Amino acid sequence: MAVHFEVVAECPVTGARAGLLHTPHGVIETPVFMPVGTQGTVKGLMQRDLENDLGVQILLANTYHLYLRPGHEVIRRLGGLHRFMNWPRAILTDSGGFQVFSLSALRKVTDEGVLFRSHLNGDAHMFTPESVVDVQLALGSDIMMTLDECLEYPAGHEAARKSVRRTVRWAQAAWRHYQERERGGGGGALFPIVQGSMFPDLRRECAQELLELGADGYAIGGLSVGEPRALSLEMVEATAPLLPREKPRYVMGVGMPEELAEYVARGVDMMDCVAPSRNARNGCLFTSGGRVVIKQARYKEDASPVDEKCACYTCRNYSRAYLRHLFLAGEMLFSSLATLHNLRHYLDIMKDLRQSIVFGSFPDRLRVVRAAPGGED
Amino acid sequence: MAVHFEVVAECPVTGARAGLLHTPHGVIETPVFMPVGTQGTVKGLMQRDLENDLGVQILLANTYHLYLRPGHEVIRRLGGLHRFMNWPRAILTDSGGFQVFSLSALRKVTDEGVLFRSHLNGDAHMFTPESVVDVQLALGSDIMMTLDECLEYPAGHEAARKSVRRTVRWAQAAWRHYQERERGGGGGALFPIVQGSMFPDLRRECAQELLELGADGYAIGGLSVGEPRALSLEMVEATAPLLPREKPRYVMGVGMPEELAEYVARGVDMMDCVAPSRNARNGCLFTSGGRVVIKQARYKEDASPVDEKCACYTCRNYSRAYLRHLFLAGEMLFSSLATLHNLRHYLDIMKDLRQSIVFGSFPDRLRVVRAAPGGED
Repeated sequence: MAVHFEVVAECPVTGARAGLLHTPHGVIETPVFMPVGTQGTVKGLMQRDLENDLGVQILLANTYHLYLRPGHEVIRRLGGLHRFMNWPRAILTDSGGFQVFSLSALRKVTDEGVLFRSHLNGDAHMFTPESVVDVQLALGSDIMMTLDECLEYPAGHEAARKSVRRTVRWAQAAWRHYQERERGGGGGALFPIVQGSMFPDLRRECAQELLELGADGYAIGGLSVGEPRALSLEMVEATAPLLPREKPRYVMGVGMPEELAEYVARGVDMMDCVAPSRNARNGCLFTSGGRVVIKQARYKEDASPVDEKCACYTCRNYSRAYLRHLFLAGEMLFSSLATLHNLRHYLDIMKDLRQSIVFGSFPDRLRVVRAAPGGED
Repeated sequence: MAVHFEVVAECPVTGARAGLLHTPHGVIETPVFMPVGTQGTVKGLMQRDLENDLGVQILLANTYHLYLRPGHEVIRRLGGLHRFMNWPRAILTDSGGFQVFSLSALRKVTDEGVLFRSHLNGDAHMFTPESVVDVQLALGSDIMMTLDECLEYPAGHEAARKSVRRTVRWAQAAWRHYQERERGGGGGALFPIVQGSMFPDLRRECAQELLELGADGYAIGGLSVGEPRALSLEMVEATAPLLPREKPRYVMGVGMPEELAEYVARGVDMMDCVAPSRNARNGCLFTSGGRVVIKQARYKEDASPVDEKCACYTCRNYSRAYLRHLFLAGEMLFSSLATLHNLRHYLDIMKDLRQSIVFGSFPDRLRVVRAAPGGED
């Protein structure tokens, strides 16, 4: 077994559960939010900040980006992604599917895979279900994802149905290839991705077929593509209960701070999103009292920290006034301090949710979260 | 006495000396290299990196930049620059003179001061010898500098002579204003700046007049303006011996790693330069074996650290291959790791030079430095 999941506690009212996910690079307490390190770095932070300040147990890296630059073979020859980027804990890599469909030009999808042009230099490349497994094996990921097709929102039912068929065939091909390559064991796990656009029947159909693979965990993909948030949650609600209780469930690309509890309430164990880091760089800070848009003139002489209730390095040492100055001056330090804070805010939320599940108070916690302000401070 | 300098050891052969500079924010071991934190941040580093990784005892901030943004009165109301930027150790601020002459447009110099337009938005501003002292007092600097006129290189003797006259008058006006404002004591020191372009007679004349102020330290300015390096050193040689032995001597805006020992050999106690940080951001790393231009293809799969002999966080944890990847991918982490390394390289050189002065081996050390490669690794 490449990864192994234990359910530690379950909420008797909602679908929320707390677990332990054992990987070749450490044990992860779930539910977990995974910071995004697209190109083998979480933008603005040093690896020791992730490890020591944030206690990150698993981060996400993008197969598409690392395949193009510096190249997975370079990383393999340098000892794998963990060694390359000096990250001793777990790494999940996505399949590249979402990036091919969102970043690259001139893509052509066939049953064999997807032909695309690099967003860096226009070179033609082909991703197949098999090649994407090979790339992720070269990276040495703890958790790999199968190549999937991501549809735009909205998509018609027939287009979504065809896309689900292709995603299932690709997952089966990826799985066969993975089993051949990993016969020796000891490597990472491979998670298939449930697609189906915003159609519960297609989500269910896709999930049922993927379950036959008997994978170590399952992802729900194709969300956060522009649909209303209620619809994303509805899709998770339609899918999560079909996935095995004893396997981790990963919803890809979500969510905003106030949504984390909603996904957890629906039985989700793993999430990732660029929201905390990208919003940080754009000057939007998440706090216990709502959002702080740091460029606003009201913070010009504000000596208070971003969030009085936060214990991160940024909040313990720097004022809103200084952060505003750094932001307006275009200083890198702003991005670093803001990213550190926003990620800490996310990880603190997850820790809090996990504890409430373990202590049996998750429904109360959910009520408080739903009543809290999500808007500006 | 705002700052107090003790000579701890002197080289019997050269002019090199080791000292202790006592300031309101700690004691500084000299000779010292001061990292540049133009806008109240050393680009790419957190303050804890400066304090814990680098052991920085004093850094430089730019009066011109902080005056324009966020404004010295804002910083004063927030408790001064130390508190504003969360920096507990010493800060030296320059006079803004160099920046007015190099960055701003439409400047008009009169005996009263200099009228200039902000490089940020074109607004008109006036710096006078008195106002620049007031700005630096508002910032709460440990060491302030008098407003000076910086000439371009080359300049004619007559133009340089007139400029020296103005710089001396400005220094006298600044000094009178400083003494009135600082009657209570307890604040920072004010260092006058010796100018005189590349003319030893003007340098000497300027130094002699400024000595009458009886300041706590003296700077040599107007170097690093495009002149050959031999000429910069010649100007320091012509000036430093005239400055009081018991006062610190600060050469502004120098130098490259291989030049540090040359300035120290001429009796210089303090230096600052953007070279380590700016070169870092541009992908040029200074090492014990010469320069590493990280974008070069030869480093693509180089698993070795930037400098085997360096103990910085970057060299202890990351390969040249990873740094090259970060640089080519335009990732902020490159700038942070490279700046950390380059500054450590400078500070290690200074520590080494200081020890050799204390141990009486400075002339040997100087010979080794002069024989070492300064070029590419």
